[in-house]
Amino acid sequence: MKILVLNAGSSSVKYQLFNMANNEVLASGVIEQIGEKESMAKIKYKKPAGDEQKREEKCSIHDHDAALTWMSEALIQSGVIHNLNDLDAIGHRVVQGGSSFQEPAMVDDYVMSEIERLIPLGPLHNPGHLAGMKVSVHQSPNVPQVAVFDTAFHSTLPNYAYMYAIPYKYYEELRIRRYGFHGTSHYYVTKVAAKYLKQDINTLNAITLHLGNGASVTAIENGQSIDTSMGLTPLEGLIMGTRSGDLDPAILFYLARKRGLTLDELDKMLNKESGLKGICGSNDMREITRMAEEGDERAQLAYDMFNYRLKKYIGSYSAVLGRVDCIVFTGGIGENANDVRLKSCEKLENFGIKIDPILNSVRSSEIRTISADDSKVKVLVIPTNEELEIAIETLEMIQKHHS
Amino acid sequence: MKILVLNAGSSSVKYQLFNMANNEVLASGVIEQIGEKESMAKIKYKKPAGDEQKREEKCSIHDHDAALTWMSEALIQSGVIHNLNDLDAIGHRVVQGGSSFQEPAMVDDYVMSEIERLIPLGPLHNPGHLAGMKVSVHQSPNVPQVAVFDTAFHSTLPNYAYMYAIPYKYYEELRIRRYGFHGTSHYYVTKVAAKYLKQDINTLNAITLHLGNGASVTAIENGQSIDTSMGLTPLEGLIMGTRSGDLDPAILFYLARKRGLTLDELDKMLNKESGLKGICGSNDMREITRMAEEGDERAQLAYDMFNYRLKKYIGSYSAVLGRVDCIVFTGGIGENANDVRLKSCEKLENFGIKIDPILNSVRSSEIRTISADDSKVKVLVIPTNEELEIAIETLEMIQKHHS
Repeated sequence: MKILVLNAGSSSVKYQLFNMANNEVLASGVIEQIGEKESMAKIKYKKPAGDEQKREEKCSIHDHDAALTWMSEALIQSGVIHNLNDLDAIGHRVVQGGSSFQEPAMVDDYVMSEIERLIPLGPLHNPGHLAGMKVSVHQSPNVPQVAVFDTAFHSTLPNYAYMYAIPYKYYEELRIRRYGFHGTSHYYVTKVAAKYLKQDINTLNAITLHLGNGASVTAIENGQSIDTSMGLTPLEGLIMGTRSGDLDPAILFYLARKRGLTLDELDKMLNKESGLKGICGSNDMREITRMAEEGDERAQLAYDMFNYRLKKYIGSYSAVLGRVDCIVFTGGIGENANDVRLKSCEKLENFGIKIDPILNSVRSSEIRTISADDSKVKVLVIPTNEELEIAIETLEMIQKHHS
Repeated sequence: MKILVLNAGSSSVKYQLFNMANNEVLASGVIEQIGEKESMAKIKYKKPAGDEQKREEKCSIHDHDAALTWMSEALIQSGVIHNLNDLDAIGHRVVQGGSSFQEPAMVDDYVMSEIERLIPLGPLHNPGHLAGMKVSVHQSPNVPQVAVFDTAFHSTLPNYAYMYAIPYKYYEELRIRRYGFHGTSHYYVTKVAAKYLKQDINTLNAITLHLGNGASVTAIENGQSIDTSMGLTPLEGLIMGTRSGDLDPAILFYLARKRGLTLDELDKMLNKESGLKGICGSNDMREITRMAEEGDERAQLAYDMFNYRLKKYIGSYSAVLGRVDCIVFTGGIGENANDVRLKSCEKLENFGIKIDPILNSVRSSEIRTISADDSKVKVLVIPTNEELEIAIETLEMIQKHHS
């Protein structure tokens, strides 16, 4: 079984081809700067002998149609498929599934129209997803295609966790509520954690921290998401690379009045110029840690704020869950920044959380335990794999569909 | 020693006169609807024999000058003072002290100019305070006057707790940061808790929940505020009577685009039409509880959301503090809504928090313990008294000033 996973953005397409027999990546790549003067297209694949091959091309790729054509030809040339009908299915990442999609969906006209209808709730992502999906359906009409939603895993949130305390009509009329994102990643690491701990996922209580350039925390009770830090959009919650996360909404009124900033300017400021970057000029945690070590006060502040906010969410979700079996760190920062893991869990012994500094300092790309033997709550580092999770859910979906 | 406490708003003045020998209230009252067609002026005082006397008058009170004149005459007529020079000091409540005031201040031209300068950060409160203060200084030039700030108790917040993750220049240029409010109340109940628990306040770790129509939580370490839920303004944090508290700031952009709401309309909506009222139409917790019991789904939702947000903050601040000696409920809802106390602390046994349902159900206006004997964290109900705290701080200030 070969499944292709597509993550189409407005000006890029990322792809990975899986052999589902052993979850092996047969090929992967990205086409970037679609529609710009000069585009960049890349593929990486395994030759039959097993050694890895790379190809990068500067070329002109006008649109998603040209991007997927480049990809198909590259996949065929590399020998990992003979033609597009070799694909058993294509799985599409979709960020915003709103209230419409509580699980993956076979792509059809209705599903595409819903993804389109949800554009106002996912303006930065859904248009690109839809463009890629339409082209993909057109180019591979005989291959089953599945949409996998970042929001779906959070559809189990109770109403008191997903509602905002604003006039109720805005929920009724505009569906303003917490949707949450990174669901594919939170779900993937939850499944891996249950297996690793040899615990039935349906009894697992966990706090999963996906810390990348975007970052979110999820509270998981009996294997289901019951709260998550991102909200209507991915702006809410933790401090991120360039996003503010939680703040007093009145700051917007104040800035508009004092500085004449428009809503569009405020939107851009909170999403693109805030977070770690807003505080210290960098959104690269490695650089920030280095700068802080060298005595840069702003980098130290950004670092402290990031960890402090994490700790607050760990406390908050510990209270929500009552019992926590494990805390999972994942994402670029979660997997690599051992000092962030240590700081955010510092002085939480009363919560049954105790990191072993030596285990924590080991660098590895393997699943591992970093809590001390006597830590009631297991603290794990689990490399996430959203593409594999999309492939797995795509496979499950077509099997269900065929049966 | 007689100290008068004034809480001047834009269209009202509340006052209380204390005998500081025994903290007894000699007189209290309010003048409302100042500047409207018909105003209402009230006084309540103790006659020498000890029985209580009330007077209410519908009259025309144009401005703060007329309001304080009415009050002075009423205080003199009632016999609690002979003339204004009988007052040893006047203490003024001021909501927003910004970064300028880390403790109470003797009122002078500089202090008044600072309170004026801070109006943009406290637009709903500081103008009224200043109007009352100016009149009071003019009418009682020989009485020492002290400004006591709601924000002062929170001046001990560390930078990683008070900074927002927005471009740093907005802190440098506009002093956008978390100030926190209700400080007088949080400080008062902390002092009372330390005394009640016979613990040195300088070693006391507490979470204080001031739950009234406005509501805030404070994390107190060694007697000092180290984090608090209100922010630049009193909008952030818990769900309140008509204020939203925490939400995804992107909701504002979405509403502006979908509904054409202006910033002023959004400001009004989040401050006046949101919170409990926005969800279920009522901002009265007693009514909401009754409606929920009768099966009203929206009242149930508002109630659940309110308690859930409380629980999240208790968890968050427990993590921040590491060790919590006591949780203190205060304010109208905190002191009276036993079901809110129970729900917000439910299933927190792993945090060492265990409420005794029988102790909790007792109605009383006394300080009391409501946690079970084996609860590691003491849970207390302490009636707040912001006016008394202002009087105490005013007294301390003038004694310091004279010495």
